[in-house]
Amino acid sequence: MSSIVAVGSLAFDSIETPFGSVGKILGGSANHFSLSASYFSPVKCISVVGEDYPKEHLDYLKSKNIDLSGVSVSKGKTFHWSGRYGYDLHEATTLDTQLNVFEHFSPEVPSSYQDSPFLFLGNILPSLQEKVLKNLPKTRFIALDTMNFWIQSQKEALIQVLNKVHCLIINEAELRQLTQSHNVVKAAEIVRSWGPHLVVVKRGEYGALLFNQTETFSLPGLPLSEVKDPTGAGDSFAGGFLGYLASCGQTSPDKKTLRQAVVYGSVMASFIVEDFGCNQLLRLSKDQIDKRFQHFRELTSFN
Amino acid sequence: MSSIVAVGSLAFDSIETPFGSVGKILGGSANHFSLSASYFSPVKCISVVGEDYPKEHLDYLKSKNIDLSGVSVSKGKTFHWSGRYGYDLHEATTLDTQLNVFEHFSPEVPSSYQDSPFLFLGNILPSLQEKVLKNLPKTRFIALDTMNFWIQSQKEALIQVLNKVHCLIINEAELRQLTQSHNVVKAAEIVRSWGPHLVVVKRGEYGALLFNQTETFSLPGLPLSEVKDPTGAGDSFAGGFLGYLASCGQTSPDKKTLRQAVVYGSVMASFIVEDFGCNQLLRLSKDQIDKRFQHFRELTSFN
Repeated sequence: MSSIVAVGSLAFDSIETPFGSVGKILGGSANHFSLSASYFSPVKCISVVGEDYPKEHLDYLKSKNIDLSGVSVSKGKTFHWSGRYGYDLHEATTLDTQLNVFEHFSPEVPSSYQDSPFLFLGNILPSLQEKVLKNLPKTRFIALDTMNFWIQSQKEALIQVLNKVHCLIINEAELRQLTQSHNVVKAAEIVRSWGPHLVVVKRGEYGALLFNQTETFSLPGLPLSEVKDPTGAGDSFAGGFLGYLASCGQTSPDKKTLRQAVVYGSVMASFIVEDFGCNQLLRLSKDQIDKRFQHFRELTSFN
Repeated sequence: MSSIVAVGSLAFDSIETPFGSVGKILGGSANHFSLSASYFSPVKCISVVGEDYPKEHLDYLKSKNIDLSGVSVSKGKTFHWSGRYGYDLHEATTLDTQLNVFEHFSPEVPSSYQDSPFLFLGNILPSLQEKVLKNLPKTRFIALDTMNFWIQSQKEALIQVLNKVHCLIINEAELRQLTQSHNVVKAAEIVRSWGPHLVVVKRGEYGALLFNQTETFSLPGLPLSEVKDPTGAGDSFAGGFLGYLASCGQTSPDKKTLRQAVVYGSVMASFIVEDFGCNQLLRLSKDQIDKRFQHFRELTSFN
């Protein structure tokens, strides 16, 4: 079992959906990714929090085999995002962003992180993703996530860092925005011409697609009768995906392992949307995860 | 191998998409359904055309084992629909509808159609669907398609006829409109409470869902690098779905047969969208269909 270095945000989220609203709950890409991946593999986290971040949650993360040597506590307040979703739950409207200590975040990589073969560059400024990547020259499988804000404001820097990663994990609307191609097959081809040989497309309730040079895998979403909050679904997906690859120790994953990693990613995403914030990721058992993996098999099989 | 009675329109379509435009090509639900289903089973068609409908196409349909005893040629012009799609190709904007001979269409069921065990009630006025159904008391598997126009204007009549059918085939947006439920799992449950024990949800490029009382099947769409025109995709899906069930002679289909019928429906829909109108349905071979079925298996398997 290999470990994964993950860089991203630890944050507070305030969320409104048609199914309820919550204020200042635990969020951020590094939080959701690490919790999700920790069900599969050890995680080494790089992030920053303010003095107001709950020490109990940091202790909880540590208890889950999540190394926080790379998380600094800075003077000031923790990053706080507020957003609202409509009934389709596909895209959030940002109501407020208080960067706080995240404004001057400059990720530092502890020497104890150097031997991790896997790296997840969560959704932060592309130049910071590049800095982390350069400081971890021994990683052998690098996945990157990003968002519409960076595609719009930092496209050149983003394409530059993409050239150095193995896998882009991106949602479908953002893939279209990034490549200026409406057709997802052509869009994935464009991204692959920039460097990453793997492109994973997240499609929300419609599932996920995986493209590599020779083949395509498509997994539908699990139809759920209760969906409360999609926040963190993408990072939970990435956590399940990379966590499973790391648990198999495959930095050049074979076809079956890659596909099953997409299924485990979808399993983790399907759990997190059933409640607000990371609640679901705090109480899962490995048995529930494996049962839901079987549920995906039952959902999709036609033999 | 059993035969299927199909009622619906034979029409001219004029279509604009971002990928081209065509004027007065052969369209209509009965045309797309019958051509698609004819690759699997004999079809007995009920419809009406005007004097301007090309005799060569009627002869072509007959040559494909499509019985036209129930198609009348009326004085006047054939139904003509004009529509436009944007880049997402999900929903057409109707530019013009000339009902012509379809305005006074009253489907007559030839006595030679009485022994068909399968019936497809294509997208027409619900009271006409009900009339056909009443005149075919011996059918044992009845599937119905409909559209937003009837849901809005004829909801009561539609729910009344739904009570007498086994399977509703409907697109996702129209399922939400019909049930007033955004959640597709709950929406299918509502439809099932009205009568049909099977609900097939068409999701365009995202594939299809099948609900029955005990389980759910989900098939993603085939990622295509060229999509030109989605017109008729839903009827081609229904043709492949019912055509395959009829070819197996299963009016109470088992789980595997039902799921494979959804795959064959998706195969036929994936072909038709690659060109305008029914062009693709005129030149397919059974070998191409079987290869694409295997393509779906390759796309979705994670064993």
